[in-house]
Amino acid sequence: MTTHKRKAQATQESLHRIFTIPEAPDSTLGLIEKEISENLAGFLGNHIAAKEQALSEIEKDFACSVIPEEPSFVSDHTHHLLTKVVAQSVHTASPSFIGHMTSALPYFILPLSKLMVGLNQNLVKIETSKAFTPLERQVIGMMHRLVYQDNEHFYQEWMHSANHSLGAFCSGGTVANLTAFWVARNNLLKADGDFTGIAREGLFKALKHYQYDGLVILVSDRGHYSLKKSADILGIGQDSVISIPTDEYNRVDCQKLRDKCLELKKQNIRILSIVGVAGTTETGNIDPLDKIADIAEEFEIHFHVDAAWGGATLLSNKYRPLLKGIERADSVTIDAHKQMYVPMGAGLVVFKNPASVASIEHHAEYILRKGSKDLGSHTLEGSRPGMAMLVYASLHIISRPGYEMLINQGIEKAEYFAQLINQQPDFELITEPELCLLTYRYNPQSIQALLSNSSHEQQDEINQLLDKLTKFIQKRQRENGKSFVSRTRIEVQRYQGRKTVVFRVVLANPLTSNEILNDVLSEQLELAQESETFLPKLLSLL
Amino acid sequence: MTTHKRKAQATQESLHRIFTIPEAPDSTLGLIEKEISENLAGFLGNHIAAKEQALSEIEKDFACSVIPEEPSFVSDHTHHLLTKVVAQSVHTASPSFIGHMTSALPYFILPLSKLMVGLNQNLVKIETSKAFTPLERQVIGMMHRLVYQDNEHFYQEWMHSANHSLGAFCSGGTVANLTAFWVARNNLLKADGDFTGIAREGLFKALKHYQYDGLVILVSDRGHYSLKKSADILGIGQDSVISIPTDEYNRVDCQKLRDKCLELKKQNIRILSIVGVAGTTETGNIDPLDKIADIAEEFEIHFHVDAAWGGATLLSNKYRPLLKGIERADSVTIDAHKQMYVPMGAGLVVFKNPASVASIEHHAEYILRKGSKDLGSHTLEGSRPGMAMLVYASLHIISRPGYEMLINQGIEKAEYFAQLINQQPDFELITEPELCLLTYRYNPQSIQALLSNSSHEQQDEINQLLDKLTKFIQKRQRENGKSFVSRTRIEVQRYQGRKTVVFRVVLANPLTSNEILNDVLSEQLELAQESETFLPKLLSLL
Repeated sequence: MTTHKRKAQATQESLHRIFTIPEAPDSTLGLIEKEISENLAGFLGNHIAAKEQALSEIEKDFACSVIPEEPSFVSDHTHHLLTKVVAQSVHTASPSFIGHMTSALPYFILPLSKLMVGLNQNLVKIETSKAFTPLERQVIGMMHRLVYQDNEHFYQEWMHSANHSLGAFCSGGTVANLTAFWVARNNLLKADGDFTGIAREGLFKALKHYQYDGLVILVSDRGHYSLKKSADILGIGQDSVISIPTDEYNRVDCQKLRDKCLELKKQNIRILSIVGVAGTTETGNIDPLDKIADIAEEFEIHFHVDAAWGGATLLSNKYRPLLKGIERADSVTIDAHKQMYVPMGAGLVVFKNPASVASIEHHAEYILRKGSKDLGSHTLEGSRPGMAMLVYASLHIISRPGYEMLINQGIEKAEYFAQLINQQPDFELITEPELCLLTYRYNPQSIQALLSNSSHEQQDEINQLLDKLTKFIQKRQRENGKSFVSRTRIEVQRYQGRKTVVFRVVLANPLTSNEILNDVLSEQLELAQESETFLPKLLSLL
Repeated sequence: MTTHKRKAQATQESLHRIFTIPEAPDSTLGLIEKEISENLAGFLGNHIAAKEQALSEIEKDFACSVIPEEPSFVSDHTHHLLTKVVAQSVHTASPSFIGHMTSALPYFILPLSKLMVGLNQNLVKIETSKAFTPLERQVIGMMHRLVYQDNEHFYQEWMHSANHSLGAFCSGGTVANLTAFWVARNNLLKADGDFTGIAREGLFKALKHYQYDGLVILVSDRGHYSLKKSADILGIGQDSVISIPTDEYNRVDCQKLRDKCLELKKQNIRILSIVGVAGTTETGNIDPLDKIADIAEEFEIHFHVDAAWGGATLLSNKYRPLLKGIERADSVTIDAHKQMYVPMGAGLVVFKNPASVASIEHHAEYILRKGSKDLGSHTLEGSRPGMAMLVYASLHIISRPGYEMLINQGIEKAEYFAQLINQQPDFELITEPELCLLTYRYNPQSIQALLSNSSHEQQDEINQLLDKLTKFIQKRQRENGKSFVSRTRIEVQRYQGRKTVVFRVVLANPLTSNEILNDVLSEQLELAQESETFLPKLLSLL
């Protein structure tokens, strides 16, 4: 046998092994799996390096662009993944990492994910998903009912109807928002007389037919960036997402919103959708949804609520009233991979009217035939995994009261943290929590006093130094790896709407204790002293 | 303590458990996990019911639209999932299920998926993904190099460049194709003089500015339905996807393609993209990519290749020449969850020019800041899971020669099956395999003889009965649960391009043996005899 042939035979044998024989439990991969199963937190704590490397250093391990010509042993490669990937990944589940919208997962999610991956269903069609199709429809039905609270008869009629859909499951909030606008756009610019509709003829002919001088989306200036992205993709253009100013609580100013509607009407510019934000990404505030609904109704405009973050609050009977008016929305985005504690890749949009999705219906010869219940005929994505099963299991195992506790705990923890910040003379709370988010910054008491007695120009000078100090502390804290808060830049009313750099905290991890919150502040106090330029410069102004 | 309080405390305790303490190995979930780990095929075989229930029956188990008010025990719910979901799911990994593009997975994928889920990284930004960011960039680099074969210097320069991207990872081929057209559209209708570009101003103003009388996409009539969907979403309209006729091998007719380009030019209609198909969904054929590239070059049009299915063929040195010309494409879609044996939810698009993606770049205050390497600034999706790790691991463990064997085996198995069908007098091969797909139907020898001596009208009558018979056999075979082929309707040249119902077979599962292929045909022969209407009617025509 030639070397070439021998090599080929060896590869073939190992290939067959790869598809049939699992690794022994005492192999590297087997041991890792055991460790993950028995104690995920311990595994993550042991294997993720506390001290982070510079990205440029990490990149050196991922520099080769050639697909290997030699197979790796599974155990060798697993070892490689542990030292090069896992070690330098982010400990999103850590109770001290309070800057992310990604949090800890319930333990049952891991084995169930494995089951989901092992089943490898494709939810585009029944032929490759069978029971997963009604399961996903049920999950969407449950989320629809959570939002709209229609009666039993409604759900019996529509939840499993072939030509209707109560919503669409997707990979995340961006695709959910995009799907909502796609549906709204196609319903608004539908077939009419000779015009066969935008889905077939496109936006140019649609605007000509309907004789609109433009098409816009209205949202507060706290709207998520995915809205502009959606407008770009849909051919409307980013400039057509019109920002409406917010009040001091980061909520849209409804008077200005209504004025804008009137103004646009006079200009013959059609509003595709008014968007209410239920949980702004940066501060967790909720727009006055009921008032927005009034305006949308008055002007007959599609009302969308981006509740990617805040939608799960509906599971809390106590805090549900914060979202009053959401039940009047035509469409609502909710991310299950945020406050529903499901892993990455689970978003959804629900539609008030089960017939809305007809505007994006499509068919093919080999699947999605007319009258079939294939989910793919009403979704943006084609082939998709069975993530809905994880939402289904979580809704059953955690149940609504369990979710209520998680939601309530988060909000109340944020209130506690806000108090804690207010009690500390050297910190400045920037935004009060409404949900479990808040923003603040390190700002020495003496400087706070100086700020309140300064001219606008002086204030600006001080705030610029504080911005730099906030960045310094945030970066240093992240690099140290003990704890993590994120940072952003938001307009602060007390500084004449100046865009100010702040720490941003998200308190969704049920394992984050009050003690940890204390430690985060203590560490920041210490780190501030390490700043050899910004803090001395600030203090020199006194 | 009141009942209410006691209940609340119990829920709280069980919640804490849920986030910290894993199930004991001898619990239902623990046992399932063990079974999956030790023998996935056995698990699937044991738990997926062979005999399928009617969908209307299954739906009864998924009829409740109320989120439970009582938590379920994990073990109870796991038992429920096993009997209601797993039992009625589809055995996509079965070697006898040869009708899907979803196939068996290598065993190492399962524990690695669990690791991926446990790490729960969010690839939208470095802050929540760290090493996963360069890892994903490397995977895209490897796939880019597989397609374009640029030199080492090229990859060193661009693979990790902040303001460039060699491609985008996404949930699947639909989003990949959509991303490709989005990039192409925004580059074509870019900023020019007073016009700030389509991304900002939208399609209506863009077409006015550039004074085009329309925007279209050209693809063969075998193009995937996601192309029309993309055109709808992007505001171009489904009617603007112009179908070019194919030859008897399901490949686009390049003469007609060129004629259409000339015709459209005269009409002042701009072609956004010419799409070459590398692996048609229904028959697995590959367009003459090199010739299409000539035409795209001549008319200066973006050339996109939809290689969602066939792209993995590039891993085979033997069959790579079938895709000659792909290296001239401006963008290429490849699904890793198809012939790269990665689970659902892994697609990607690569771009020849690393600067192409600048046309869809976007930023936000809290992430994706200018100059950052956050992957989210150049992807359609926002939050995304770390699926790239599974592609990364597969490329290393299986390696290029391993993939070559898998690809070659699939194609050669299809050739064997085609021979087998040709040897059987009562079957009619409809499309010869080029990759590992083929189509055929049951057609008794006597009827075949009759067809060849019939008028067109008679032929049509016979073919209508054969269509019904094919549907009958396919459905019955699926319901019996022993094996599965899919069905579709394709134009058949020997019947004057009549749309004919056929069995469709995909031979990507490495565990499918020749014996299984024999059995599939035997079962179909038997099932044909069970038809009490169509077969007798057919035979009565003799």
